[in-house]
Amino acid sequence: MRVALAGGGTVGGGVLHLLRDNAELIAARCGRRIEACAVAVRDVEKAKKRLPEFAPLFVRGWKEAVAHPAAEAVVELMGGEDDAAACIKAALKGGKAVVTANKALLAARGDEIFSAAREAGQPVAFEAAIAGCIPAVKTLREALAADEIHEVAGVVNGTCNYIVSSMSDNGESFDDALAQAQDLGYAEADPSLDIDGDDSAHKIALIARLAFGARIAPGSFDVSGVRGLDLRDVEYAAQFGFSVKILAQARRMNGSVAVAVQPTLVPRAHPMAAIGGAMNAVLVRSAFAGETLYYGAGAGAQPTAAAVAADLVDVARGSSALRADCAGGESPSLLPPEEFSAPHFLRLRVLDRPGALAGIAGALAEQNASIEAIRQNESAPGKEVDVVLLLHETTRGRANAAVRAIEERGLALGKTVVMPIKRFQ
Amino acid sequence: MRVALAGGGTVGGGVLHLLRDNAELIAARCGRRIEACAVAVRDVEKAKKRLPEFAPLFVRGWKEAVAHPAAEAVVELMGGEDDAAACIKAALKGGKAVVTANKALLAARGDEIFSAAREAGQPVAFEAAIAGCIPAVKTLREALAADEIHEVAGVVNGTCNYIVSSMSDNGESFDDALAQAQDLGYAEADPSLDIDGDDSAHKIALIARLAFGARIAPGSFDVSGVRGLDLRDVEYAAQFGFSVKILAQARRMNGSVAVAVQPTLVPRAHPMAAIGGAMNAVLVRSAFAGETLYYGAGAGAQPTAAAVAADLVDVARGSSALRADCAGGESPSLLPPEEFSAPHFLRLRVLDRPGALAGIAGALAEQNASIEAIRQNESAPGKEVDVVLLLHETTRGRANAAVRAIEERGLALGKTVVMPIKRFQ
Repeated sequence: MRVALAGGGTVGGGVLHLLRDNAELIAARCGRRIEACAVAVRDVEKAKKRLPEFAPLFVRGWKEAVAHPAAEAVVELMGGEDDAAACIKAALKGGKAVVTANKALLAARGDEIFSAAREAGQPVAFEAAIAGCIPAVKTLREALAADEIHEVAGVVNGTCNYIVSSMSDNGESFDDALAQAQDLGYAEADPSLDIDGDDSAHKIALIARLAFGARIAPGSFDVSGVRGLDLRDVEYAAQFGFSVKILAQARRMNGSVAVAVQPTLVPRAHPMAAIGGAMNAVLVRSAFAGETLYYGAGAGAQPTAAAVAADLVDVARGSSALRADCAGGESPSLLPPEEFSAPHFLRLRVLDRPGALAGIAGALAEQNASIEAIRQNESAPGKEVDVVLLLHETTRGRANAAVRAIEERGLALGKTVVMPIKRFQ
Repeated sequence: MRVALAGGGTVGGGVLHLLRDNAELIAARCGRRIEACAVAVRDVEKAKKRLPEFAPLFVRGWKEAVAHPAAEAVVELMGGEDDAAACIKAALKGGKAVVTANKALLAARGDEIFSAAREAGQPVAFEAAIAGCIPAVKTLREALAADEIHEVAGVVNGTCNYIVSSMSDNGESFDDALAQAQDLGYAEADPSLDIDGDDSAHKIALIARLAFGARIAPGSFDVSGVRGLDLRDVEYAAQFGFSVKILAQARRMNGSVAVAVQPTLVPRAHPMAAIGGAMNAVLVRSAFAGETLYYGAGAGAQPTAAAVAADLVDVARGSSALRADCAGGESPSLLPPEEFSAPHFLRLRVLDRPGALAGIAGALAEQNASIEAIRQNESAPGKEVDVVLLLHETTRGRANAAVRAIEERGLALGKTVVMPIKRFQ
């Protein structure tokens, strides 16, 4: 099978190396050779210098690559939206299968892309779009195809996880951990897409489509990343036996689908808390299989290339699972963020004076939010102290309303931190 | 697609419930309904009483189920060897796809079964045979089909893991932990197959076939389970930052394949150390994807049913990956156990007297085994003390030879404990 690549950057180079290094093994395992026949780049001369061993393959612009007469499949690795969408649709129209790693495009314009795939009778495979080499797409579409999925929760952004792990494990501040992530190449010079949670939002929107048939626009649910996470809260969470992770969640709740990306407390003894450095993990809870978890590198040239190549093998094998419809059916509604229900962690900055705790407890009681645990480490009458509370399961709306009441009554100073707690089975 | 079940016990019941509960969902996702048409049991009347809602399906003996004219696939859940093999071969001969959870049969007689499948042009799917609902087979055959696999390491026996986790987490003795596992139904009255490592050996032999094309008879490699593990060693391991797990390993080494099941030290910060209770996990290291790990329930009616149903969906979808050859090709040779190379943990019972440590260090030096760390907790001149050593990477043969020399020279009393250490990336 000949393959045209649209994009010859880091991941494109990884795919070229993989297809060359593993050529015999792939041919033996899937009964066909898989070879690159063209690689579209912006600057052919620069590409030839960077990857001289693949020099004959480089062409200028995606149109030439897609039009390559021998190409049975097109791998879109350009990123961005408009050109990438045009490239994918041209490939489908030309009767070619598509493999893409473009989570932003699929999250924003999935209906358009998957409808084009259905019309063309060709697959759009996107294993590399969610959590790198972790076979999340394959698992949701195939391994759990016979099971009813209740929820998916993932650490799906390596930059966030690197930063939050450095804070947890080494007691570093957010700023120091970010600077270190930038030094090591885990974070971009402008890290917003990662650390504000938007990249995770793209991925969880795609996961919600696979797991629940939900078409949810990024921007329509609560998204916050690791930015602004306070080391103190990481340490308070640890005192209660939790690690903080930037968790992307999609779950069935009250007939709707709840989707969110936010700093979340997870029990330290659970494997999810052991996802270190820039690694990713996706946990699925389904009716019969129960809890399953999938762990691996979420980014990087080689792991992403492995995911792209896995899709190419499926295309070469004519996998019908790749054609499982991602476009049709009625979408469940999105649960309003304030109805998202979970146990919660609250950290309030309180003036240590008589009646303060009673007032806080009262405001929570008014919202029917019941307290599971409370901790105030230092006592300093007349001074500010941190009070940390764990609430039993309640909605985000009730937790927020209680916090507003506490603040309006002058019981808390500065910003109150509210984070959900995710307990697993 | 109509399916005949050979075996209507716990797992069979789980499959029947799953196919009924998830019928609409399966039909929507794979475009075909999947329904049981016959269930072979030993005692039809007993089965009808146990599962009255499926009463019309029960027939006596596998032959009648396999011969059911509407059955396109046969699920073998009888266990054992001879009858199961006959049932599978009869189904294949009748042009039916086979799904089985029978790890013992496939490990012992895989060549025979997979050759019959190849001749019949029908798949033998066996996701449920390795680590329950964890999609280990699918991952090795599909998600990592384009990648070169270097090694697989798994916690693949829930009984062993329950016991070793109780020892680690709660400081229980082996005997107490086993009794508790039996009370909870995690261990059989005769737990030998699980706690001596044989069940893990069946699974790792199957994994070695999938990952490396290796055909390795159970019995030809080192197998030990959790039986006899001393709580002291679990505690010493913890002092060095390790958890003990009963790890089944298969890896490429010196052009051969090394396979072993044994108590192994794993770093406590790694997700593998967080696999608690009766859960299972399979870790794969491959050239491009790097380390990936798959976690879930390794046993139980519902998780096993989920794995069986996933195979049925693949059969219904006509997945060509299921036909990937498990029979052909030349098998790599098995590395002799004494050449298995790893860092090692040693615990010696030593008479605390001048020269004892020098003698031990000398015996290790003679074998070129170099010491990474050493700890002797109590000092009691003239009394017996435990000395724990961590050795840098060395072969099991050298470690054993050093221990023999130490014992021959009267430097160690009683049994010396040797366990490999598995460090991940």
